[in-house]
Amino acid sequence: MAKKIFVLGGDGFCGWPTALHLSELGHEVVIIDNLSRRRIDAELGVHSLTPIAMVDQRLDAWHQVSGRTIRFHYLDVAQDYARLLALLAEERPEVIVHFAEQRAAPYSMRGPTEKRYTVNNNVGGTHNVLTALVACDLDAHLVHLGTMGVYGYGGAGFEIPEGYLTVQIHDDAGAPHDWEILYPTRPGSVYHMTKSIDQLLFQFYAQNDRLRITDLHQGIVWGTQTAETRRHPALINRFDYEGEYGTVLNRFLVQAALGHPLTVHGTGGQTRAFLNIQDTVRCIALAVAHPPERGDRVKIINQIAESLRVRDLARLVSDLTGAAIEYLPNPRKEAAENDLDVSNATFRALGLDPILLTDGLLAETLEISARYADRVDQRHIPARTAWTREQQAALDQAGPIETIRPVLPGVAGAGR
Amino acid sequence: MAKKIFVLGGDGFCGWPTALHLSELGHEVVIIDNLSRRRIDAELGVHSLTPIAMVDQRLDAWHQVSGRTIRFHYLDVAQDYARLLALLAEERPEVIVHFAEQRAAPYSMRGPTEKRYTVNNNVGGTHNVLTALVACDLDAHLVHLGTMGVYGYGGAGFEIPEGYLTVQIHDDAGAPHDWEILYPTRPGSVYHMTKSIDQLLFQFYAQNDRLRITDLHQGIVWGTQTAETRRHPALINRFDYEGEYGTVLNRFLVQAALGHPLTVHGTGGQTRAFLNIQDTVRCIALAVAHPPERGDRVKIINQIAESLRVRDLARLVSDLTGAAIEYLPNPRKEAAENDLDVSNATFRALGLDPILLTDGLLAETLEISARYADRVDQRHIPARTAWTREQQAALDQAGPIETIRPVLPGVAGAGR
Ligand SMILES: NC(=O)c1ccc[n+]([C@@H]2O[C@H](COP(=O)([O-])OP(=O)(O)OC[C@H]3O[C@@H](n4cnc5c(N)ncnc54)[C@H](O)[C@@H]3O)[C@@H](O)[C@H]2O)c1
Ligand SMILES: NC(=O)c1ccc[n+]([C@@H]2O[C@H](COP(=O)([O-])OP(=O)(O)OC[C@H]3O[C@@H](n4cnc5c(N)ncnc54)[C@H](O)[C@@H]3O)[C@@H](O)[C@H]2O)c1
Repeated sequence: MAKKIFVLGGDGFCGWPTALHLSELGHEVVIIDNLSRRRIDAELGVHSLTPIAMVDQRLDAWHQVSGRTIRFHYLDVAQDYARLLALLAEERPEVIVHFAEQRAAPYSMRGPTEKRYTVNNNVGGTHNVLTALVACDLDAHLVHLGTMGVYGYGGAGFEIPEGYLTVQIHDDAGAPHDWEILYPTRPGSVYHMTKSIDQLLFQFYAQNDRLRITDLHQGIVWGTQTAETRRHPALINRFDYEGEYGTVLNRFLVQAALGHPLTVHGTGGQTRAFLNIQDTVRCIALAVAHPPERGDRVKIINQIAESLRVRDLARLVSDLTGAAIEYLPNPRKEAAENDLDVSNATFRALGLDPILLTDGLLAETLEISARYADRVDQRHIPARTAWTREQQAALDQAGPIETIRPVLPGVAGAGR
Repeated sequence: MAKKIFVLGGDGFCGWPTALHLSELGHEVVIIDNLSRRRIDAELGVHSLTPIAMVDQRLDAWHQVSGRTIRFHYLDVAQDYARLLALLAEERPEVIVHFAEQRAAPYSMRGPTEKRYTVNNNVGGTHNVLTALVACDLDAHLVHLGTMGVYGYGGAGFEIPEGYLTVQIHDDAGAPHDWEILYPTRPGSVYHMTKSIDQLLFQFYAQNDRLRITDLHQGIVWGTQTAETRRHPALINRFDYEGEYGTVLNRFLVQAALGHPLTVHGTGGQTRAFLNIQDTVRCIALAVAHPPERGDRVKIINQIAESLRVRDLARLVSDLTGAAIEYLPNPRKEAAENDLDVSNATFRALGLDPILLTDGLLAETLEISARYADRVDQRHIPARTAWTREQQAALDQAGPIETIRPVLPGVAGAGR
C-alpha cells in the first residue's frame, strides 16, 4: 500500500538510495535535508569519491528514468522547528524515515565545536521531530536509524538481542524476577552517545504519547550503488573514503585501488557488524511495511548482515587485491579485541537474505574505487582525530607499527 | 580545605542556600546564573512566595553579615559556550556544582516550546560544561543534581540502589554472570528524561576523558530557610507554590495557610522521596568533600531522607493544620500507586542524619507560608499542565473527585 513518506536526511549516503527505493515501490516520497553533509565535505576540504549530482539534478534524473516525482525541502530539522512543524501539519505524512543526523564518530570527536554540534544536531533534531508529531497530533510511523554502537561493542558472552535484554534481579526477599530492560548502553564516541540518547527520547515519547517508533540499529554500511542509483549517472550515490566519514570497508577498497596499504588501527581485533547498502534500502522498506501498533513500546531491530574483525576484513581485501596491511595506533578509546555476536532475527523472519562480504560484491565496489581513483586526495585518507589528548599525540607522531605485505601480487598496483 | 567552587544555577532554590553554605565553610564561591528562573516567573505571571532580593542585594547582604565575598557572573551555560569556556580556563575552579537546569516536570510538559527548551537547556548546558572541561584540560570535580525520577519511581520489589544495579545474565552456554549496569531509567516527564540523558553524558565523559563526576539523585526538596539564609532578610530563599514549580509539600503548606483544601492528584498513592533544604546544602558540602578519583566511574549518590505516599503527606499536613483534602484528576501519566524504597547509604555513612517530616520543621515552613500568604495568587495554585491531550481535557473540566474534611479544626482558617 502506497504511503506518503518523509525521508529526513534523504540526500545522504543511506537516505538517497532509500528515497529512490521507496519511490520505486510506489510510495510518495518527500526528501527533507539541510545539505549539511555537503557543507561538511567543504569544511573538511574533501568530496565524495563518486561525483554526486546536485539535489535538483538527482531528482530530475529520477523523474526521467522512472516517471516518478520526489519532492525536496531544504530544511534544518534541528534548527528550524517552526517550519518542520508546519510541514508535518500540512503534509501529514504516514511515515517518517529519519536519517538526518551527524553520523561520523571521528568527526564527533574532533573538538568542542564538533562534539557540541553532534549533540545539538542529533538530539535536538530527533527531539524536534518527536515534539512536532505530538504538537500536530500526527500518528505517523517514525523509522529512525540507530547504530550497533549503542551496544558498546558487545563481548558480554551472549548474542546481543534486539534492543531489549531480559535480566534477573532479586527482590528484597531474595526471590528472583525476570526484568526486560533496554539493553544497557555504553557508547564509545559522542556520535554513538547521541544514539543512546535518542533511545531515551523514543522510550519516553512511545510511552507518554503513544508514538509509533521503529529504531533500526544498523551496522557499518558498505558498497555504494543500488538497483535504483545505477539507472542514471546523476543518480550515483555518495562514497566517503576519508578519515572522518569513510567507514572501514569502503576506505580499504579505496586504499587497495590506489595501491596504498590498508590501514588497520590497533590490533584490528575490534569486531564490527556490516551490511551492504542494498540491504539498507531493503530493510527500511521492510520496516516501513511493518509498523508497530499505537501504544506499543519502541520496536528495535538490528539491521546487520554479519560480524567480522577489522583485521579479517583487511585480509579479505588484501587477498582480493594484493594490498599490504599497515597497523597504526588506534585513535579510539576501545577494547583492543572484542567479540560481537548479534541477532538479526527480525529482518531474517521478514524474509531478508542479506548480502555477505564473500558474495562477490566487494569487486563491484572495488571497481568503483578504481574508476574514480583520480578524485581521491590521499592526504585525507588517514584518520586524524583521536579520542583523547594522549591518543592524539600518539596518532600525530607515529608511523606504522607494522606492515604486512601480501605473498601474492594482486590488482591495481597492490604490493607497492 | 578551602576550594574554588563554581555554583551554576546559584540563584535558584537549591543553589542559593548551597552557595551561602559553601561560602560559610570557607570556600571561594562564584555563582553563575542566567536568571532564567526569575524570567520564567515573569512569563508565568507569578513570583516566589517569599520576597527574594535581587542578586546584587543578596550578595551585598551576605558580605555584610559574613564578611565573605561571593562573586556572580550572569551567563547562560547552555547558550554561551564561548564565555563559559573562557571563564573556566581563566578561573580554573576545583569544583563545579551544577544546578543550572530547568527543573519543573509540569513546566517541561506544558507544550512544544517548553519541552524543547527543557531538553536544549538541560542537555545542551550539561554537555557544554563537560566539553569545556575537556577543552581547557581542567580536572575539576563536577557535582551535578540529578533526580530520583530517573529510577521511574521504583516499585521493582527491592530497595533502589545508588545509581548502579547488579543484574544476572546468562551467556550463550547458559552460565549465569553478574553484570553491574546503570539502573535502567524510565523517566516520567521531559524534565526527568533530561536527567536520564545527563547520566549518559556523564558515563561517556567519565570513561573517555576521565572527568571526575558526582551525580546526586535528589528527592523532592521541602522547606525554605537554612542557617545562612536566616541571617538577613535579603538572604531569604525562594519558595515556589504555584502549579508548575511548586513541589507537593510546599504547595500543601501554602494551601493550608490559606485555608484552601490540599489538592491531591489521582489516588495520592504515588510514593515520593523527600529531603529538607537544610540537608540539600549539607549533602552538597559532603559531596564536595569526597570527590571520586580521576578515572573512576561516575559516583552516583541518592540524596533523600525518607519516602512517603502523597496522600499520607496530605494527611500529615491536614493533621497539623486542619486543612481539607481534595482529590483531583492526575495530570501526570504514572502508576496510580507505587512503592519507593531507596537506599541513602552513602550519605548516611558520611554522617548525614537527615531531618524528617515529623521532626517539627513543617511548622516553620507553615509559618513562612502564613507570613507571606498575602503574596499568593490563588489562581496559580492548581496544576494546569497535563501530560497528554486526554488528560488535559479531564484536567480542564473536572472539579474535585472527592473532598475529605478533617474531623478536628486546625489552624489558619482550615476546614472552610
Ligand atoms: N553509514 C553507515 O555506515 C551507518 C551505519 C549505522 C547507522 N547509520 C545511520 O544512518 C543515518 C544516515 O547515515 P548516512 O551514512 O546516510 O549519513 P550521511 O551523513 O551521508 O547522511 C545524513 C544526511 O542527513 C542530513 N542532515 C544531517 N543533519 C540534518 C539536519 N539537522 N536537518 C536536515 N538534514 C540533516 C545530511 O545533510 C545528510 O544528507 C544516520 O543517522 C547514521 O547514524 C549509518
Ligand atoms: N527543588 C527540588 O525539589 C529538586 C529535586 C531534585 C532535584 N533538583 C535539581 O536541583 C537543581 C536545582 O533545582 P532548584 O529547585 O534549585 O531549581 P531552580 O529553578 O530554583 O534553580 C535553577 C537555577 O539555575 C538557573 N539556570 C537554569 N538554566 C540555566 C542556564 N542555562 N544557565 C545559567 N543558569 C541557569 C536558573 O536561573 C535558576 O536560578 C536542578 O537541577 C533540579 O533538577 C531539585
